[in-house]
Amino acid sequence: SEALAPEAGLACRAWLALKGLIMGLVLKVCNFFRKAWDLGQNEPKKVIHCLKVGMALTVVSLFYYMRPLYEGMGGNAMWAVMTVVVVFENTVGATICKSLNRICGTFVAGSLAIGIHWIVSQSGKEFEPFINGISVFLLASAVTFSRFIPSVKKRFDYGAMIFILTFSLVAVSGYRVDKLLEMANNRVYTIIIGTALCIMITMIIYPIWAGEELYMLITRNMDKLAYSLDGCVGEYFNESGSSSEGDKESAKKLLGYKCVLTSKATEEAMANFARWEPAHGRFNFRHPWKQYLKIGASMRACAYCIDALDGCVNSENEVPELIKKHMSNIALKVSSESSRVIKELAKTMKTMKKSSTIDYLVGEMNNAVLELQEDLKSLPTLFINPQPLQGADCPEKKNTGAVALMDIMPLVTLVSLLIEIATRIEGLVNA
Amino acid sequence: SEALAPEAGLACRAWLALKGLIMGLVLKVCNFFRKAWDLGQNEPKKVIHCLKVGMALTVVSLFYYMRPLYEGMGGNAMWAVMTVVVVFENTVGATICKSLNRICGTFVAGSLAIGIHWIVSQSGKEFEPFINGISVFLLASAVTFSRFIPSVKKRFDYGAMIFILTFSLVAVSGYRVDKLLEMANNRVYTIIIGTALCIMITMIIYPIWAGEELYMLITRNMDKLAYSLDGCVGEYFNESGSSSEGDKESAKKLLGYKCVLTSKATEEAMANFARWEPAHGRFNFRHPWKQYLKIGASMRACAYCIDALDGCVNSENEVPELIKKHMSNIALKVSSESSRVIKELAKTMKTMKKSSTIDYLVGEMNNAVLELQEDLKSLPTLFINPQPLQGADCPEKKNTGAVALMDIMPLVTLVSLLIEIATRIEGLVNA
Repeated sequence: SEALAPEAGLACRAWLALKGLIMGLVLKVCNFFRKAWDLGQNEPKKVIHCLKVGMALTVVSLFYYMRPLYEGMGGNAMWAVMTVVVVFENTVGATICKSLNRICGTFVAGSLAIGIHWIVSQSGKEFEPFINGISVFLLASAVTFSRFIPSVKKRFDYGAMIFILTFSLVAVSGYRVDKLLEMANNRVYTIIIGTALCIMITMIIYPIWAGEELYMLITRNMDKLAYSLDGCVGEYFNESGSSSEGDKESAKKLLGYKCVLTSKATEEAMANFARWEPAHGRFNFRHPWKQYLKIGASMRACAYCIDALDGCVNSENEVPELIKKHMSNIALKVSSESSRVIKELAKTMKTMKKSSTIDYLVGEMNNAVLELQEDLKSLPTLFINPQPLQGADCPEKKNTGAVALMDIMPLVTLVSLLIEIATRIEGLVNA
Repeated sequence: SEALAPEAGLACRAWLALKGLIMGLVLKVCNFFRKAWDLGQNEPKKVIHCLKVGMALTVVSLFYYMRPLYEGMGGNAMWAVMTVVVVFENTVGATICKSLNRICGTFVAGSLAIGIHWIVSQSGKEFEPFINGISVFLLASAVTFSRFIPSVKKRFDYGAMIFILTFSLVAVSGYRVDKLLEMANNRVYTIIIGTALCIMITMIIYPIWAGEELYMLITRNMDKLAYSLDGCVGEYFNESGSSSEGDKESAKKLLGYKCVLTSKATEEAMANFARWEPAHGRFNFRHPWKQYLKIGASMRACAYCIDALDGCVNSENEVPELIKKHMSNIALKVSSESSRVIKELAKTMKTMKKSSTIDYLVGEMNNAVLELQEDLKSLPTLFINPQPLQGADCPEKKNTGAVALMDIMPLVTLVSLLIEIATRIEGLVNA
C-alpha cells in the first residue's frame, strides 16, 4: 500500500490538474459565448446579416439539389457557392463593390486568357507551356504590383486578385481541358448568378446601407464630441460635490472623443462603399460622400485639441481657487456655447436642413470667446492689485490661460468645420 | 457648299473633341505609369514581392504541365493555384497566418461536412437535401456571426470564411459526387502543397518580415516626431531670415507628425502578423510585439500634443517681440532637449541596447522644463516693472505660456513612453 499511496497522490493531482484545465476551458468558452450574446443583443443588424448569409447559401445550394438546374451547370455550380461566400458583405455597398469587381475581373481575365490560348494553339502544342508560363509570370507580377498603387488598391484590389486567379486558372488548365470556351462560359454564368443573388438578398431583406452607417457614425461622433468638450471643462471647474456613480457615467462620456480619434479607417471604408450604392432613403445616388470625410477630419482635429485639453486639465499643476472661480463662468460659457454649436450641427445633419439658428449660435460662440479674452486681460490686474505677492503664482495662472487658449483652438477648428458644413448643406440644397 | 460648311465644322469639332478625349486618356495613362514607376523606384521591396508572386504561380502551374504530377492530382491541381493566389501576401507573417488559417479552416470544415454526410447517408437519401440545407444555413450563420467578434476577427477572419466555403462546398457536392472522401483528401493535399510553396518562397527569397517593417515604422516615426517638435518650436521663434527653399524642406519635415497620427491601423496589422513569424534577424520568436503598439500609442499621444502646439503657433494672436525673445532661448532648449530624448530613444531602438545616456538626457529635459517654469514666474515681473502699461498685453503673454505648457505635455507623455521603453528593453535583455 506504500507503493500505491504516491501513485494515488499522483493520480489525484493529475485529476485535479485536468479538472482545473477543463474548468478553465469551460469558463473561457462561457465567456466567449456571453460576449457573443452581448454583441448580438447590442447590434441586431449583425445577427440579421448572418441569417442573410445562411439564407443566400441555402438558396444557392438548390443548384445542386434540383436535378434540372444541376444538369445545366454541372460541377460549375461550385463557383456560384464560392461567389456567395466570398462576395457577401455586411453592407450593400461593399457587396455591390465586390460583386462588380469579381465579375469584371473574371470576364477580362478569362477573355485575355482565351485569346492568348487561341494564339498559342495556332503556333503549335510544344511551345504552349513555356508561353503560358511566361505570360502568367508577367501578368501576375504586373497586376500584383498594380495592387500597391493607392488608387487601384482603394477600389479594385479584389478585382485585381480575381484577375490573377482567373487568368492563371484558365491559362494553365487550357493545356489539359478541351472545351475551354464552354467551361469559361459556364463559370462566368455561375458567378453572375451568385452575385445577382447576393445583391438581391442584401438589398431586399433588411438592407444595411454603408451610406447610412457612415452618416450615423458621423452624427454620433459629433454628439460625443460635444459631450466630451462640455464634460471636460465642466469637470475641471467643478471637481467636488458629485457622486461617484454619476462620475463613472460622465467619465465614460468624457472619453467619447477617443472614438472620434480612432474612427478614421471605418469612415474611409464606408465612404468608399457608399459610392457604389444606388439611391436609398434620403440619400441620392451622387450624394457628396467625400464631404463626410472632410467633416470627419475636422472632427478629428477637434478631438486632438480636446485630448490636449484633457491632458492639461489632469496635469498636476494646481490653480488657486480664486482665479479658478474668476475664470470658471466665462470658460464654462465658451465651452457650452461651442458644444451647443456642435450639437446644432449634429441636428442639422440629422434633419439635413440648413439650420436657421446656426449663424446666431456661431456668433454667440465668438462673442463668448471675445469675452473670455477680455477677461484674461483683466486678470493680471486682479492678480497684482489685491495680493501683490501672488505674482509669483504665475505658472499656475498660466495654466488657466492655457486652458482658455486651448478652448479657443477647438473653436477655430469648429468655425472651419462650420464653413465646410455650410458648403455641404448648400450642395445638398442644390442637389 | 453652304450645306457642307457646317457639316465640315461639325466633323472638325467632333474630331477635336475626340482628339481631346484621346489626349486626355493618354495623359491619364501616362500619369498612371509614371506614378507606378515612382512607386517601384521608391519601394523596390514591392517590386520584388510581385516577382515572387509571379514565380510562385509559375512553379505551381508545373502541376499542370508535367504529366506524372497532373495524373496524381487531376483537376484538383486547380486548388493549388488558387491557394497560391489567395494566400501569398506581402510579408512573411501575413502569408503564414493566412496559410494556417486556410489549412485549418479547410481541414475542420471538411471533416465536419464528411461526418455529417456519413450520418445523413445512414438515414436515407431522401432527407439528405433538407438536412444538408439546414446544417449549411445554421453553420454559415453561426460562423459569419463569429467573424464579428473582435478576438476572432483579429486572427481567424480568413479561416472562418474558408470554413464556410469548404463546408458548404463539401456538404452540397456530397449529394452528387460519389468519391467524396477521395476528393476531400486530394483537395487538402493540394492546399497544403500550395501553402508550403508560398511559405517557402516568401521566406527564402528576399523575405519581408512584418516584424522588421513594424520596427522600422516605429523608429522612423520617432525620428519624424523629434524633427517635428524641434521644427515647430524653432519655426515659431525664428520666423524671419530663412530662405524659401529651405522652408519647403522644413515644412515637409514639420508635417512628419501627421504620419504618426495615421499609422495606427498599419501598426496593429503588422504586430498581429509579426506574432506568427519564426525567429529572424535580431528578433526572437516571442519578441514582445505588443510593446511596440504601446510605444506607438504613446507616440500618437505626443503627436496630438504637437498638433495642438502647431495650431497655437499658427494662430493669429501675435506676441510682442520682447517676450518672444525673452522666452525663445529656454523654450528652444526644452524642445531641443525633449527631441534629443526622442532621438536617443530611436537610437536605443535601433541598437536594441539600453542607452547609458538616456537617464542623463531625461534629467536634462526635466531640468529644462523646471528652468522654463522658473522663467515664467519671472515673466510678470519683467512685464510689469519696465512697462507697466503692457499689462494689458496679457492675452499675448498667455500665448507664450500656453506654448510652454503644451511643451510640458509632450514631455510628460515622453517620460511615460520612456518608462515603457525601459521595461521593454529589460524584457529584451532578459529574453
